[in-house]
Amino acid sequence: MKSGIAELEAKGKAAKAASRRLAYLPTEVKNKALNSISKELVAKKGGILKANEIDYKAGEAAGMSQAMLDRLMLNSDRIEAIAQDVLTVADLPDPVGEVFELRTLPNGLQIGKKRVPLGVIGAIYESRPNVTVDISALCLKSGNAVILRGGEEAVNSNTVLAKIVREAAEAAGVPRGAVQSIDSIDRTLVQHMLKMRDVIDLLIPRGGAGLIRLVKENASMAVVTGGIGVCHTYVDKSADVAMAVAIAFNAKVQRPTVCNALDTLLVHADIAQQYLPLIAEEWAKAGVEMHCDEASRAILKSVSGLKLVAATDEDWGKEYLSLKAAIKVVRSLDEALEHIERYGSGHSEAIVAGDKAAAARFLNEVDAACVYANASTRFTDGAQFGLGAEVGISTQKMHARGPMALRELTSYKWIIQGSGQVRP
Amino acid sequence: MKSGIAELEAKGKAAKAASRRLAYLPTEVKNKALNSISKELVAKKGGILKANEIDYKAGEAAGMSQAMLDRLMLNSDRIEAIAQDVLTVADLPDPVGEVFELRTLPNGLQIGKKRVPLGVIGAIYESRPNVTVDISALCLKSGNAVILRGGEEAVNSNTVLAKIVREAAEAAGVPRGAVQSIDSIDRTLVQHMLKMRDVIDLLIPRGGAGLIRLVKENASMAVVTGGIGVCHTYVDKSADVAMAVAIAFNAKVQRPTVCNALDTLLVHADIAQQYLPLIAEEWAKAGVEMHCDEASRAILKSVSGLKLVAATDEDWGKEYLSLKAAIKVVRSLDEALEHIERYGSGHSEAIVAGDKAAAARFLNEVDAACVYANASTRFTDGAQFGLGAEVGISTQKMHARGPMALRELTSYKWIIQGSGQVRP
Repeated sequence: MKSGIAELEAKGKAAKAASRRLAYLPTEVKNKALNSISKELVAKKGGILKANEIDYKAGEAAGMSQAMLDRLMLNSDRIEAIAQDVLTVADLPDPVGEVFELRTLPNGLQIGKKRVPLGVIGAIYESRPNVTVDISALCLKSGNAVILRGGEEAVNSNTVLAKIVREAAEAAGVPRGAVQSIDSIDRTLVQHMLKMRDVIDLLIPRGGAGLIRLVKENASMAVVTGGIGVCHTYVDKSADVAMAVAIAFNAKVQRPTVCNALDTLLVHADIAQQYLPLIAEEWAKAGVEMHCDEASRAILKSVSGLKLVAATDEDWGKEYLSLKAAIKVVRSLDEALEHIERYGSGHSEAIVAGDKAAAARFLNEVDAACVYANASTRFTDGAQFGLGAEVGISTQKMHARGPMALRELTSYKWIIQGSGQVRP
Repeated sequence: MKSGIAELEAKGKAAKAASRRLAYLPTEVKNKALNSISKELVAKKGGILKANEIDYKAGEAAGMSQAMLDRLMLNSDRIEAIAQDVLTVADLPDPVGEVFELRTLPNGLQIGKKRVPLGVIGAIYESRPNVTVDISALCLKSGNAVILRGGEEAVNSNTVLAKIVREAAEAAGVPRGAVQSIDSIDRTLVQHMLKMRDVIDLLIPRGGAGLIRLVKENASMAVVTGGIGVCHTYVDKSADVAMAVAIAFNAKVQRPTVCNALDTLLVHADIAQQYLPLIAEEWAKAGVEMHCDEASRAILKSVSGLKLVAATDEDWGKEYLSLKAAIKVVRSLDEALEHIERYGSGHSEAIVAGDKAAAARFLNEVDAACVYANASTRFTDGAQFGLGAEVGISTQKMHARGPMALRELTSYKWIIQGSGQVRP
């Protein structure tokens, strides 16, 4: 039997070789593969559930939190939903081969850009087994090979899912080797993967801050990091109060464990007396613990039934991922902008304002992947943005920013057609 | 006096602070600054020439090659040309602020992307002092701050040029700190610069293979590398012979010291007998030394006046940067494609072919920044491509590929405008 590293190297080579043929695989073949993957996931539901049960029981035995267990758990409905998502990707337009910015230069050269896949995508992720299928589907559709490394807590589920994807894809005519998965839980393999820059063109980590840091500091190839969202909602003095309550409530409560949920609420002093008790009462009903600066605490302390905590320096710039929120009263839009510049993570930031000039300044000056006026930051998501799906949310500025889907998994090449032109 | 590293850190902080205001500096202010820089370069020609003479004499004394000395040397005409190039950049449209892919989602959210600067660009380059001005101009126009680190061989020229740029820009209203230069030749500063990822958003190395490698292996931030061009021209059996002679001649001879010059000529066996003697005679007149595989040598050995060398394995994939070329006879387009895949550096590759299907396959299957049919690879250049200028040529696939100019120095942010939308 091969050692883990030799096997990983062989998988890398196979992925690279497959990627060359994948790059110009006809759209029909890719869609046929995606349809077949979707069908097989449903057909082989039993095997998936059995593998998932092993992971789930091991998680329980290891004392995994209820939230983690819920993320890990698959059931019949969830598998159907995963299979459905693959069909959604099949329905998206194929980004590969698109020619754009086509021009004819004065010397007669026809010049344009043609969209091409990146090559081989590496994915390192945690917990949710659906990521195995989601990322494979997006990579296939965009003509990229993929090397998957899921979390050890889901290794049995991921192994079965990757096998189904691989076999269905190959049977449909996708080049052998296009979908690779690392099914061993040996952690040295992750370290080795981070050094495989001759094979992996782009590495996408999806998981907690620890994983992101590990990848950022050790990867030798291009990386798109993201997923860390310290998100602010600023309620301007010109805000519609009811709208501001609805938006901050949704941003905090609708799904508090994710990166685009609200962490800090900034409220203009002129509206704080009126606004804060209203949102605080709603939040309290949902169980939100509020970490307040002095000014907001002074306003809220007379409201009964609230979970108030005095904010410390650590609350600013904190990603709670839970039913907690920091609250701060600011004296101006400028103070809000400064606070966001200092503490934001460049993910999603929102203003609620009736004043168009204030909203315009916020949209213009805040430096983040997604900047909102009068809407909840919870919309930052590939599917919500109409991209069909996402491999992750980039908080960096290079290559792609915000939700990354098919087009963000491509590059381009310049195509120049002449009739004998030479450079004078 | 501050230590070099403390001073560099201070410059980094100043650049970062300036970049925030540069991001939404009006186009008129940026253009006013560029016009003023152009004027000042001409007005202060005397000082530039004096500084350049010091560098030139030091280079001569150190035994620098004639080619290097020529790259280092400035004269009145060259300074005028540099000043003119700055005006060209001023005339280019401002990429910042452009809104694109604007849509209205079914829920009424207005969503689009807005082009924004990257932030702070680091540039590490060698030899040619005009790079100091070119890169500064492109960064200013695209709203980025820049930290310049030129080669020690041009330190006096670069120091004077950077000072002129900085002073003229600030006088025109560009935020203080937007243009920083490292005027010390202490090499530990380069190492330190490579670690400044909190400050530098993108690092661009321009120079030889040694510099590129140093940056690629040690930079902690995003890097766009390029400039290494192992360029092939493939002459198909369907080629117009006269066109193929003109293209290969131009690609090799017009400027042999640059990255987009021809390195290897691949010739289809069916046309080699007819074609090779013709190009070889032209190349011989220009002094080209030909490193031939056995088949091409068999054809060319009877032609008199040629500088023929038997090719070794090292000739394939070699970037000559001089009047040398490798020649290989291939039996098919497939063999040419395989050779290019194996030995190319992903820079610029060309086919000469009358057969449209052959040209289409080449354009489709070759994986390089710029792929040509029936034209010289020498066109790979920002100005030639109609981009006005370039900060470099990327041979990577992430972010930007090929000549990089204003747009490639930008990112985007998602702008979402609502009327109270929350996520269901």
